[in-house]
Order: sequence, then C-alpha cells, then structure tokens
Amino acid sequence: MKNGVKGYTMEQIEIGKRVKKLRKEMKRHGIDIYIVPTCDFHGSEYVGDYFKTREYISGFTGSAGTVVITDKEACLWTDGRYFMQAEIQLPEEYTLMKEGEKNTPSVKEYILTYISNQKRVITIGFDGRCITKEMQENICPLQEANVICDIDLVGRIWENRPAISCNPVWRLEDCYAGKTVSEKIASIRTGMEAQSCDVLVETQLENIAWTLNLRGNDIECTPVFLSYLVVEEKQAILFVQQNVIGSEVRAYLKQNGIQEKSYEEIYKFVNEIKDKKVWVDFSSANYKIVNVLKKSNEIYNCFSPALTMKAIKNDTEIKNMKKAHLLDGIAMTKFIYWLKTNVGKIPMDEIMLGQKLEDFRSMAKSYIGPSFSPIVGYKDHGAIVHYSATKESNYAVEAENIILIDSGGHYMEGTTDITRTICLGAVTQKMKEMYTAVLKGHLNLAAAVFKSGCSGVSLDYLARKPLWDIGMDYNHGTGHGVGYLLSVHEPPNGIRYKILKNQALNVPFQPGMITSNEPGVYLEKEFGIRIENLLLCKKKISNNFGDFLQFETLTLVPYDSELIVEEMLNDSEKNLLQKYRQHVYEKLNGYLSEDEKKWLLEQS
Amino acid sequence: MKNGVKGYTMEQIEIGKRVKKLRKEMKRHGIDIYIVPTCDFHGSEYVGDYFKTREYISGFTGSAGTVVITDKEACLWTDGRYFMQAEIQLPEEYTLMKEGEKNTPSVKEYILTYISNQKRVITIGFDGRCITKEMQENICPLQEANVICDIDLVGRIWENRPAISCNPVWRLEDCYAGKTVSEKIASIRTGMEAQSCDVLVETQLENIAWTLNLRGNDIECTPVFLSYLVVEEKQAILFVQQNVIGSEVRAYLKQNGIQEKSYEEIYKFVNEIKDKKVWVDFSSANYKIVNVLKKSNEIYNCFSPALTMKAIKNDTEIKNMKKAHLLDGIAMTKFIYWLKTNVGKIPMDEIMLGQKLEDFRSMAKSYIGPSFSPIVGYKDHGAIVHYSATKESNYAVEAENIILIDSGGHYMEGTTDITRTICLGAVTQKMKEMYTAVLKGHLNLAAAVFKSGCSGVSLDYLARKPLWDIGMDYNHGTGHGVGYLLSVHEPPNGIRYKILKNQALNVPFQPGMITSNEPGVYLEKEFGIRIENLLLCKKKISNNFGDFLQFETLTLVPYDSELIVEEMLNDSEKNLLQKYRQHVYEKLNGYLSEDEKKWLLEQS
Repeated sequence: MKNGVKGYTMEQIEIGKRVKKLRKEMKRHGIDIYIVPTCDFHGSEYVGDYFKTREYISGFTGSAGTVVITDKEACLWTDGRYFMQAEIQLPEEYTLMKEGEKNTPSVKEYILTYISNQKRVITIGFDGRCITKEMQENICPLQEANVICDIDLVGRIWENRPAISCNPVWRLEDCYAGKTVSEKIASIRTGMEAQSCDVLVETQLENIAWTLNLRGNDIECTPVFLSYLVVEEKQAILFVQQNVIGSEVRAYLKQNGIQEKSYEEIYKFVNEIKDKKVWVDFSSANYKIVNVLKKSNEIYNCFSPALTMKAIKNDTEIKNMKKAHLLDGIAMTKFIYWLKTNVGKIPMDEIMLGQKLEDFRSMAKSYIGPSFSPIVGYKDHGAIVHYSATKESNYAVEAENIILIDSGGHYMEGTTDITRTICLGAVTQKMKEMYTAVLKGHLNLAAAVFKSGCSGVSLDYLARKPLWDIGMDYNHGTGHGVGYLLSVHEPPNGIRYKILKNQALNVPFQPGMITSNEPGVYLEKEFGIRIENLLLCKKKISNNFGDFLQFETLTLVPYDSELIVEEMLNDSEKNLLQKYRQHVYEKLNGYLSEDEKKWLLEQS
Repeated sequence: MKNGVKGYTMEQIEIGKRVKKLRKEMKRHGIDIYIVPTCDFHGSEYVGDYFKTREYISGFTGSAGTVVITDKEACLWTDGRYFMQAEIQLPEEYTLMKEGEKNTPSVKEYILTYISNQKRVITIGFDGRCITKEMQENICPLQEANVICDIDLVGRIWENRPAISCNPVWRLEDCYAGKTVSEKIASIRTGMEAQSCDVLVETQLENIAWTLNLRGNDIECTPVFLSYLVVEEKQAILFVQQNVIGSEVRAYLKQNGIQEKSYEEIYKFVNEIKDKKVWVDFSSANYKIVNVLKKSNEIYNCFSPALTMKAIKNDTEIKNMKKAHLLDGIAMTKFIYWLKTNVGKIPMDEIMLGQKLEDFRSMAKSYIGPSFSPIVGYKDHGAIVHYSATKESNYAVEAENIILIDSGGHYMEGTTDITRTICLGAVTQKMKEMYTAVLKGHLNLAAAVFKSGCSGVSLDYLARKPLWDIGMDYNHGTGHGVGYLLSVHEPPNGIRYKILKNQALNVPFQPGMITSNEPGVYLEKEFGIRIENLLLCKKKISNNFGDFLQFETLTLVPYDSELIVEEMLNDSEKNLLQKYRQHVYEKLNGYLSEDEKKWLLEQS
C-alpha cells in the first residue's frame, strides 16, 4: 500500500494483478466504481471461503473491511482493530482508509466526491446478494448514479474459487437449548403480532440456528448453516441447501411443522409476497431480497424478534454456560501453567502455542472447536488488536516479555471468549503499570451495580477510566454479546462509550445477557495488553428506587500476579482481586494437579 | 385526586367545576377526548400566564405535564420530579399517571385503549398552536380518530384569562454576546446549506433571542420574546408582536438586514412557502405550522442549527459566565453564612428565605432576576424535587434539620443554577451519610477525564455510583445544559443514564458546553438532598490516543462540612474536596467580611 516504504511480497504483487483484471471487467461492463464489502448472502460478520471476495481482491484478511475500486484508485476501509494489520497486508495499489480517524472520508463521502469530480453520470456496481440493505444505504448513494447490482465481478476473475460450503445440519438437543423450537416460534409470532407483521423474512444465520435448535458448519468457527427462514402466522419455511438435511433432522422439522424448500428458492418466494407487512432486518437481509420485498409490501425494518430472545439466555443456557466456563477455565489454567513452566526450556512460537491451547481445550469431551481463530501475540505483535500469526510473522517465544492470548471455544454447553496477557520472564515497569491500569478498569466494570435501563454506554467509562485519566485509550469496544454455540460476537448488547446511530444496538442490559469485558492498551511496536472475561447480567435487588442489576463473571482463569503493581490498586480493587482469586481457586482446584494447584494459589 | 384519602381545598373543588364546564364544551363540539399539554405557540418548557391552560384545568403547577379529559376520566401525566407535588395539588376528579413507572400507560396508549373500547369512531380535540408536532406524534394517534385541531376549549371556559405577554425587546450588546447577529446568521446559513435547505422556520424562542442578540420578558425567568424567525439565503424575517420593538432595536434590525412582520402573520407566510426544502424542528414548531408547511414542501425535521451553536459558548460568553458565577458565589456564600448565623434567632420560613437570597443576589449591579422560581425545601419538603413553597405549605425554619435550596440568577454576564443542602442544627447520621454519598458522586463527575465522543450517558454513572451501590437512586437527570441569559434548561447537552429516542439529545460533549452536575437523594416524608454546580466542558489533551476532554466547575459556593462523613471519602475524593475548598476561598475571600471569611475557611 502507499503509506510507508517497504518491499512487497509475491502474493501482494499477485493481488495487484487481480485489481488490474477487475478494472478490465469494470470497463467491459461500464462500471466506474465497484464496491466489495465483507459479506455473504446473510450479512454475516465472518464469512465462508466462497464469500471472501474482499480478501481475494485486497489481500487483507481482517474480519471487517470494505474495498472500493475505481479506474485510478483502490481503497480499503477498516476499523481501529485492524489498522496495523492492514498496513502490513495491503499491496502497493491500495490506500488504507482508517475509519473513525479525523480526515478519513466515509465510503459514501468518498464515492460522492468521486461523483462530483466527474462531468458525466457514473455507474456503481456491486453484487446485490453480498451487501446488506443497511450497508448499501450507508455506503452507496443510489440516487446519485446508475447502479448495476446483479453482478459479481470478483467472482468473474476468481480462478479456483472455493465452492459454497454445504455441511450437514445437526440438532441441538433441548437439554442444551433450554427451549423447544415450538416455544421459540410461538414467541416470534407474538413479537410479529405486536408489530402487526404478517411475515418475518429471517435472513440472519445465527437467528435461524437459534430458532430451530439446529447447528451446522458453513462458517469457520461459527456453527451455522446457510439458509433463510420465513415465518407467517400459519406456516414456517426453511430454505436450505440440498443434501445438508439428514433424515433425523428432516423428521424433526416435519414434526415441528417446518416446511423445507431449496436455498435458492428464496428469491422466487419473496417475489410472490404481496400486500403484506413484512418484517425484515436491513442489517442482515441482503439488498436483493429487500429490493424485491419493497416493491409490493409494507416493510418493517428492525432487528428480528429472535435477536433479543437469543441474547437473553434462558436458565438452561446459563447453567450450561457456567459448565462451559469451568471446562474452559481448566484448559486455560493448565495451559498457562504449562506455558510458564516450559517457556525458555523447549522451543515455542506463536502458531504452536495456539495449537497447544487447542490441545488443552480438546481434552474436554463436549469440546467442539475454537469459537474464533486464536490471537497469540508476542512482544509487539500483542499491539495488533486482531493479530493472526502467519508463517512469515510467527515469532519464537522466549522466557522474557509478555504474550497476549485471546481465544475461545465452542462446547456443547456454550461458547467462551477469554484473553489473558501473560508474563514470560523479565518485563518492564511500564508493562506492569499498563497491565495494572487495564486490570483496574476490568475489575471495576465487573463489579458495577446499575439501574435497569442502563446500556453498555453507561458503564464503559468504568473500564476506561484508569487509561483516560493518564491520556491513554484502546481503539475498540469494551464488550460484545456472546452467543450460545453460535457467533462469539452477538448483538445487540455491547459495551462502548459512543452511542450508535442504530438505536437497536443501544439496548439496555437485561438479566441473562452475556457480554465480554475486555479493556486493553496497545503501544505500537512495543507491546499489547488485554484482559477479557465474560459477564452474565443478573438481577440484584428491586425496591422503591427501582430495579438494580449486576454482573457475574463467568470466566475462571487467574490474572497474572507477576504483572500487578499492588500500590496502584485501591482497597476496593484489592478486595475484588482477592475475591476473584478465591473464586477461581475454589472452582478449579479439584481438576488440577498438585503443582498446578500450588501455582494457582500464588496467582491473584 | 383519586389516590389517597384527604380533604380538598376550595380551589381544588373550583377546578373540579372547570373540568365539568370543559366536558360541556367537548360535548357541544362532539369531542370525546380533549388534550391539554404544557405548551405555548413555541413549545417552550416554561410558558407565560396566558398559556397556562393545563394548570387552569388541573390545578397542577409543575413545569411538565399533560392533561387528557374524556367524558368519564381526567388524567394528568407527569414525571418523577413532580409525583409528590401532583398528588398534593390535583383535585378529586383527577388520576395521576406516573410517567416512567411500570404499568403506567403512555398518553398514546391510554388514548388507543379508549378508542378500542368504543364501538364508534371517536373525535380527539386539541389546540394545534399549543402542541408541538413532536408532542402530537408522541401522544395523539391521528390515524385512529377524527381530529379537531383548531379549537382552544380551555380558552372558551377561562374567565379573566391573562393577556398574552407583550414586553419590550432589548439588545444584548456584543461585549456580552461575543458574536454579532451577522456572524450568527451566516453560520446558520452554512448549516442550512449543508442540509440543502432553502428555508429555516425557527420557532424556538431561545434560539431566536440567541441568534438576534435580543432579549425580552415574555416568559417568567426566561428573557425571551414571543416571535418567529424565518431565514432564507437572501432574507431573514422576524415575526414579532406590535409595540415590543423600540426605535433603537428597530434600527439595529434594519442595519442587520432583518425584516420585521407582525407575529400573527407567520401562518399566512408559511402558507405561501411552496416547493422548498424547509428546516423546521418538530420538537418546538407547533402542529399547525408544520401541518401547513408539509402540504407543499419537503421537510427537514431536525434541531435548528442555532441550537448547537448556542450550546457551545464562545470565549466571551465563557469569560462572562465565570464572572456571573463569581457574583453568584458571593451572594450565595453570604446568604448561607447569614442563614447559619441567624437561624433560630430570628423568625424564618421557606418563602422568606427565597426572598432573602434574592436580596443578596440583587446586590450585584448586573443582576437581572432569578433564572427560575427558587426551590426552598425544609425538612420533608426537600424530598419534593421541584417543590415551590405556597402560603399554605410554607414551613417555619428552625435551628435543626437540613434545608435544600435550588436557585439561580440571570446576570448580564450569564446565568447560574446552584443547589446547596444546608445543615441548620441537629441532624441525623443518616442525613450525613446520604449527603456524603451524593457529594461523592458529584465530586467524581466533576473530575471526569473523557474521550471526545462521550455524551452525558457515558458519565452519568459517576454521579450515581455511590447511591446505586447501596440500592438507592434519584428520579431525575444528573445534568442539563444551561443557556446564557436565556433558559436555565437548554438542550441538547445533558447527563443521564438512559439513551433517548431522539438521537439529537444524545449529543457528545463539546468544549464550551455548560452542563449542570446535580445528583441528589429524596426520602419521602423525611428529607431531600441535592448538590448542584455548573460544569464547563474544556479540552484537556490531544495525542495519539485521541482528544481528551474534562470539566471546569464554574460554581463558587462551599459545600457543608457539617454534613460530610470524612470516613466515607477515599483519598481521591478528599483531595478533590480540598482543592474545591481552596479554589472557592481564593476566588471569594476578597469580597467577604472578616466573619464570613473565617467561616468560609472552616467549610470544605
């Protein structure tokens, strides 16, 4: 990319050639601006290999980003988590657009400027199935240009493109799901009735999997299956790929009154919906589906009723999630002990440590797989928020400095997401002070007592205060919702300081919601620190003053006492630390060896 | 009113008769539901005597409330600040609807239920000039009923109704305003251009006064004048009552290219606007004006560009505001000393103390008058958030217990708003503990360092934490914006924990905004505590991590050391308290007598 002087790899040069090929295709179709967001047919956050068009055309592997290509320029927009990674990965042809920074135009502003600089009417192109309606509204000014929206130009130049994933669908038993599909669809229908909606066109894969108590394997680390679900008062139809539904699941669907149609048939089906009030969520439904529905129906654009129901875990899910966190705590704690005991004695590197941690997790019978690709960042790699070690970048790990490990697992009992920053030997005072500042915010957030009605915006300050007081910050949210054996990032609950434009994402906390608590600090080219636990929201007390809520920390893994500057903690923080330490020890000690137990007792 | 057993006053019985008269008028006009919001032609928060229809028909004198009258029921909706007051004031005929409490239907829900219980089409009536478009949308479901919107039924039964206020308009010199009217209108036109608007129909009285650097006296405690302002690219027109513009102001308007038309002509004028993009703010523009404009124009409904410009005080205003707070601090401090020295020695009551404080303020040459009717609440009256002493309720004040005094002044140099809770003699440990809990929140909020992008929602927790931790709370916002010699309640900035539906009220803090910091605690039938200062938002530092902001406390009045439980303060809070104490002493001591100085030194 253009900023910074460096050499480019063969792969980057190859990607540059793809941009040229794409421009030829654009010219052939009379397209001036071609947009490649990160999106599958369902607005998924992470996408299957078939859908990695943005990665194919830019080389950038982060989970979020939008490419815009014109005859002269190629630009990638991404957010603060990925600035460093994008700078490393993008080829020479690209300009990195740092979202949220002053002077960075938004995609829409960029396109509008391009348009106003031309003397003629220009044409914008994109694949209308691979962009959500909301994305289109945010980035693409349809009124100002001609639009070609049914063209997959990257697909046309992509040789050896992977096939669309088509893995078997399996059933999540009620002992894990806590509610039956009939109960869930009944609740969804109640939600639809409250909004006088005749039809719900559910396009969000996690919502579909949750509603039907089914799981799949079509997106890495996210056990969903490609599908659409239409719910009406009298019928429910699942649009799903052929061959992914076995006889057992088919019988189960039939028994629950859910019809089955082929995946591609959704477009024909929505085309036939007329004069109805249709609930469709523009943040996950693709442009093409919404466009078809809009022609002959009244549209209610809102998060699906399944989204909030899914976010509020039921008693069974909560009980299971606690078990998953016990299993995960055992694995993580054993891993940290192993790491501290063996570092400097045997060869280690970042990739190998990710695998080793996976081995520890795999010891649990109910373990299914990672909930996301683990982040193992040693030394300055820890400062790259969503670092993913490659063969080229892979550091050898020695008995010094600190390492940041952010990982999680899917168990039958639920999903975990945990970050620990671990001392491997000699560290600087600055590292300790930064670790302690992050820990203070993390502890105070976990201990918050708050009125019902508070969203994450009300509590974010707690996590950031120790950093803000010294003029520092981290460029990512403090917390995100976590799914049950679904996506590790699950809206609508979250913790951040900015109020979002989409009010549906500013929801108040409700008992049963699970949210991460992950402040950090990142010093480019030095080191990175992040500490992450998952928080379960619970009722505390109701009285004349109202309903009060609090959190219960689910994660059971020690902090690193070697990195804590005791004098920086006030009495309340010391007390919180001590209580967590005792709690972790009490829960884990029965599953640890004598050596592990002894070491854990020394941690705080 | 219906809740609670008590006798009713003659006045309350008289108000009951008015409800009966209104019902006769409703019947005559075929109206089933008549709505009386608290509103003048401009959506003002406080209204002139002519506009106090809601008070006339209900007896409730609070600043916020909506009356709905049907053939069978009379209901008043108001918010938590006024529950106790409304319970006391409402006559037998009324039901109090406590906004924000569980099981309380909204006005709209109430009306919809009424409609669905009838077998026929019903008719809703209201005065379309005395309800903002936003209020109408929130409370009145137009689609579900017939509507009569050009009828002032309360006016028809109101004998001896006061005339519409019509006081002289005067000019605020540039040395107070800091920016000329030409500069302000140029900025407004820039704002309009950014939204491609041809016309701004400005209906909000504070915005008009601010824009024109003019002041009036048509609303008690709010030096505005009844008017409308229309700004287009080439012209600006002020619609104002005859006889309020003197020759000097007329010359000034002419010189600045502002045309003058009569107040009533606005309806004719907006009726003639066609095929334009019109900026009009539904939260202040009345239903009638918006309705006329909507017919033939594209509407841009948003807070006027003047609103944000007005909220961000310029350097002159800031310098002046500091002077106003010095003057106010001298008056308040002298008053508190006088009160503490004389209580128990001379007769005192709540009304007399309000007057005495006014006398102290009046000593400043540039003092204009109170910025709102002072709240002087002794003993359990302190628990009524917006208490206003009447002849009947007026307590004698003795040398014991605590008194809550919330007051403010308009000076040429700006506007103040301050609350102190003052120890008058023997107090309970509970009072001290509650005072200290409130003070902790108040101090911590004032000391916040925060990233640019934070709104008040991000910081509210700081003020409430000491109460929330012990399962207590206060049922009002923590802070509101404050105008410059305009309204003491000035949006859009504020501090609260709930994110508002109207995103324009969720604005981030910007340097120059002034916001109150007023946590409290209210124990019904016991006592009330509130501590309030005004905070100026300022830049702290900009670095790689972003732009950091902080507050400077403008208010210069001691807290009450007799009410502070030292052991409840942590080191940081002790330090904040000590710094404020020193700051107040340094600023004020030159203006105090020896006795006052000696006493002030003892305060913290």
